Amino acid sequence: MTKRTVILDVDTGHDDAVAIMMAGRSRTLRLDAVTVTAGNQTLDKTLRNTLNVCSALSLKVPVYPGMRGPLLRPLEPAPLIHGESGLDGPKFPECTLESRKEHAAVFLARRIMKAPAGTITVVATGPLSNIAMALLLEPSIAKRMRELVIMGGAVGWGNITPAAEYNSYADPEAARIVYASGASITLIPLDVTRTVTLTKERLAHLSRIPGKGAELFTASMTCYSAACAKYIGESASMHDPCCIAWLEKPDLFTTEKKFVSVETEGTLTRGATVVDHTGVLKKDPNARIALTIDAQRFWDLLEAALQRYQMLA
Amino acid sequence: MTKRTVILDVDTGHDDAVAIMMAGRSRTLRLDAVTVTAGNQTLDKTLRNTLNVCSALSLKVPVYPGMRGPLLRPLEPAPLIHGESGLDGPKFPECTLESRKEHAAVFLARRIMKAPAGTITVVATGPLSNIAMALLLEPSIAKRMRELVIMGGAVGWGNITPAAEYNSYADPEAARIVYASGASITLIPLDVTRTVTLTKERLAHLSRIPGKGAELFTASMTCYSAACAKYIGESASMHDPCCIAWLEKPDLFTTEKKFVSVETEGTLTRGATVVDHTGVLKKDPNARIALTIDAQRFWDLLEAALQRYQMLA
Amino acid sequence: MTKRTVILDVDTGHDDAVAIMMAGRSRTLRLDAVTVTAGNQTLDKTLRNTLNVCSALSLKVPVYPGMRGPLLRPLEPAPLIHGESGLDGPKFPECTLESRKEHAAVFLARRIMKAPAGTITVVATGPLSNIAMALLLEPSIAKRMRELVIMGGAVGWGNITPAAEYNSYADPEAARIVYASGASITLIPLDVTRTVTLTKERLAHLSRIPGKGAELFTASMTCYSAACAKYIGESASMHDPCCIAWLEKPDLFTTEKKFVSVETEGTLTRGATVVDHTGVLKKDPNARIALTIDAQRFWDLLEAALQRYQMLA
Amino acid sequence: MTKRTVILDVDTGHDDAVAIMMAGRSRTLRLDAVTVTAGNQTLDKTLRNTLNVCSALSLKVPVYPGMRGPLLRPLEPAPLIHGESGLDGPKFPECTLESRKEHAAVFLARRIMKAPAGTITVVATGPLSNIAMALLLEPSIAKRMRELVIMGGAVGWGNITPAAEYNSYADPEAARIVYASGASITLIPLDVTRTVTLTKERLAHLSRIPGKGAELFTASMTCYSAACAKYIGESASMHDPCCIAWLEKPDLFTTEKKFVSVETEGTLTRGATVVDHTGVLKKDPNARIALTIDAQRFWDLLEAALQRYQMLA
Repeated sequence: MTKRTVILDVDTGHDDAVAIMMAGRSRTLRLDAVTVTAGNQTLDKTLRNTLNVCSALSLKVPVYPGMRGPLLRPLEPAPLIHGESGLDGPKFPECTLESRKEHAAVFLARRIMKAPAGTITVVATGPLSNIAMALLLEPSIAKRMRELVIMGGAVGWGNITPAAEYNSYADPEAARIVYASGASITLIPLDVTRTVTLTKERLAHLSRIPGKGAELFTASMTCYSAACAKYIGESASMHDPCCIAWLEKPDLFTTEKKFVSVETEGTLTRGATVVDHTGVLKKDPNARIALTIDAQRFWDLLEAALQRYQMLA
Repeated sequence: MTKRTVILDVDTGHDDAVAIMMAGRSRTLRLDAVTVTAGNQTLDKTLRNTLNVCSALSLKVPVYPGMRGPLLRPLEPAPLIHGESGLDGPKFPECTLESRKEHAAVFLARRIMKAPAGTITVVATGPLSNIAMALLLEPSIAKRMRELVIMGGAVGWGNITPAAEYNSYADPEAARIVYASGASITLIPLDVTRTVTLTKERLAHLSRIPGKGAELFTASMTCYSAACAKYIGESASMHDPCCIAWLEKPDLFTTEKKFVSVETEGTLTRGATVVDHTGVLKKDPNARIALTIDAQRFWDLLEAALQRYQMLA
Repeated sequence: MTKRTVILDVDTGHDDAVAIMMAGRSRTLRLDAVTVTAGNQTLDKTLRNTLNVCSALSLKVPVYPGMRGPLLRPLEPAPLIHGESGLDGPKFPECTLESRKEHAAVFLARRIMKAPAGTITVVATGPLSNIAMALLLEPSIAKRMRELVIMGGAVGWGNITPAAEYNSYADPEAARIVYASGASITLIPLDVTRTVTLTKERLAHLSRIPGKGAELFTASMTCYSAACAKYIGESASMHDPCCIAWLEKPDLFTTEKKFVSVETEGTLTRGATVVDHTGVLKKDPNARIALTIDAQRFWDLLEAALQRYQMLA
Repeated sequence: MTKRTVILDVDTGHDDAVAIMMAGRSRTLRLDAVTVTAGNQTLDKTLRNTLNVCSALSLKVPVYPGMRGPLLRPLEPAPLIHGESGLDGPKFPECTLESRKEHAAVFLARRIMKAPAGTITVVATGPLSNIAMALLLEPSIAKRMRELVIMGGAVGWGNITPAAEYNSYADPEAARIVYASGASITLIPLDVTRTVTLTKERLAHLSRIPGKGAELFTASMTCYSAACAKYIGESASMHDPCCIAWLEKPDLFTTEKKFVSVETEGTLTRGATVVDHTGVLKKDPNARIALTIDAQRFWDLLEAALQRYQMLA
């Protein structure tokens, strides 16, 4: 079987790191490149974190620096959850990777246009700034991507405001551009990802797996779980890794196709994911929305991924 | 037992008419006055409909004309559902009632201030224009009302747009004023009211009750059901009468207290009811929100109300 | 000659006080009532100031309390310019006037509807909250007023923001309602009123006039001039009194008729007066806009007004 | 004397064509590249027009295609003024130029970063979409440009709406990004450019100059003048060429430095240029704004430019 070519667009972040780890040695995905945006933290930090994660996991993947903030708004990082570094917890060895010089958005546009149509899948786990910029530079990539998988948005209620999830809130104009682009979008919303929560027991279980993967996972998740408990009173949710699970095992999910857009101007609803559930707008669906995930089978996937890093001691 | 004093603020409308009917001869409520706003139709029509309903049911209640439209927006009536008259279906005999001269908002402010504190309950089943105007004229009525029961808003998804219910969409600025007023608010949202749907069998059953009440109900609901089926592909929902059910039998409902506001400026979310489910705003709840209704027991209440009009043949 | 019947709607304020004084003993105007809104200061303070001014000048005019703030926004008073009391400077004797009970907006709607059509002129020198509320309660007053004279708005640049004058900024939704009402509007914008500035020499000259009028003027303007110099680095401008000058001597002004509206939603332009100078909207003019005033002749009018209070020693 | 290196960013357009002509053989400017955006017409058309103009004038300058529309809004071309082709009037010979492959925004970012700091001047005569995209890709270019000269905006009143000039209205978000960038901006607003109007006599005079320059000018301006007369009732204004005049002879202009931003969200004021004339925002100036131009001397410059094309018969 040919592996599916995937580019990850991240703002690394604890859960982004887990997504990179899952994709990096996947049996069904080939990680083509990682593009980085500001989000959880400034670009300098999310880029550093991404390079550190790839280096620690011996992933020889090109890493492209992208947007330093949202298209129109000031960057609002999330240091409470992810810490001052954006990835507090793990101690990284000296980094052996350097980022490329090309801008992430320019790379995305170029890479997707040069590859055969329908071959590149993009997974976005941060604010959609890089993806929107690539679409502005080259609108044709929308139809040329195989699929665009987005962790972001909230169909029910948000986390950063009552109506909005962080990624969607952070750069709502980028999100609006992306949903209007014509790309084949799969949305993994907060409603789904917050049903996959890491218990202490599971963390203890996974931390016993040998190798660099579980080592990084354990250090990251110990810190992330503590922050989630302290600042939002919730267990740690595996937001971004759900996107990799979708690509590896879509049958873990139930989904439906709807028309989706993102509010950019409301005073209470900036970044709200607006889904036309009953079709009042009479528009064709533009996104497949995940409704549920089989959390147990997600953990099986994650465990298998960690085990693939056993050689890396 | 003393009956609870209730003022209905309506934009009559098929389901408003049923609410008036239920309140008009209630065993536990005393219908003090009916105030009328534009909404489903122009004020001239909603006022005419209200007078016709009260007259046909021999309800000797003062009726006050109010706002001719939303505070800031042009009126957008809903002729598809309620017809050109705003209450297509029943043929009314000559009307024996005349409306009062005082403006509904001025009446509301005066009436609530003159009554002992905590004695007047207001039920609003149309756009909140009259209530907002009364609050602007006399902010003290917010704390002086016993309760303000609102049919309007959508916690999940809307009917007029993906994000908004009609009443809240029609005059979102009025809604924002009301939710910020400090009144003791009970919100009966669309999510609840659309679970109470009128089947053909039930309509046939209720239409066999003798008297003017069932006669009016049958004529109204036959027309309304047909319009709902034709234009929104749904059974007829008993939106406004749910408010009367709440006052008569609160134990039909489950509820929760949350902080609620209404979006006024979004391009996709105008009129959206924004509920802070998880408390991210750290604000005190300002509304009790109905979550569920026992539909079977609602129909029992409605049937009992119709039977109280048997004398009126 | 019959005097023209005028209602002043004020948020008293130093320059509002001068407008009341000019209108109170005018040879051509009959001051029918004064309605009061929040603005420069809270309603409690602007009402107190209005009653004090009328009492000190022995004006037996009914005073009606109105809106406690803008329709949709929190009140933003201007204590730097007008002081904590809203009218710092003069010491008032015990007040012999009491305000009426009726709300200003209800009074305005009632008074204008009862008077013969085309007989009542309204002059608004504060935020347009009361006028907008009266128009919402009774839209017919728009065509029934003889004229609505507004001090407010800025055709060129503003004072509270680069784009907006204070009154228009304070309650932009009210302003939008007023400009869309169909009333016969004369706008005396900031561009005109700031050309009428009080020099030290003129203040000294006017303060030598005997009587209560000049006494109040001197005490008010000494304080106001100092605040203007200190906080905005400008001479004191006679904003509100220009409206009375317009009614007494329209030939002091040059004017033009244009279509005017007010921005309510901009992030930089809230409250901006938008004038369609070149007719790109192809709409009929809805306001006469003052372009220039003959400042010297204004001062003649003001001096004559002060002299009419000589008997009041 | 070393010539100043200039990149023109255009949406060619009759007056853009004249600007290219003036810059193409300037004695003081070296035209380094032309970047093209959608605006007056679609990108396909403005690119075609730009290549045609450069080819007809034998200008060997690289031409880069850029944005196909505004960052967030649908493109609203101006076919009434510039015709279906975007440059109706002249008949072009077969085009000998081809556009480059690199995107205009990517080129701008690369070119400015590679050149010594403070050496590249950019002149933007269309919507600011390309410039904003370049700034989003590489924020450092703001400080690295020598100067950014913008034809756009209206300090007084607009042309496409009462409050806004076309370029600023067309992509207000791009304009906001540009004004907030920290670049050394010179703004040549509509207020100035519409004082430079082409009379029939002057057109007749200039058309007698031999060579390809005057030939193109005559064909373009005959058509443009007719459209301006027909659709806006005005003489043809030399909007875009004023930017070249500014670079060649700044002493034709009076200017002042102010803080400028652009409204993006107003319902009446989208794209309005908001200038803080009196400093109420207490921000440092971010733009030099042209106030007046010596129109006679502008025509002298233009005539000299036309004469430099005499060899091209």
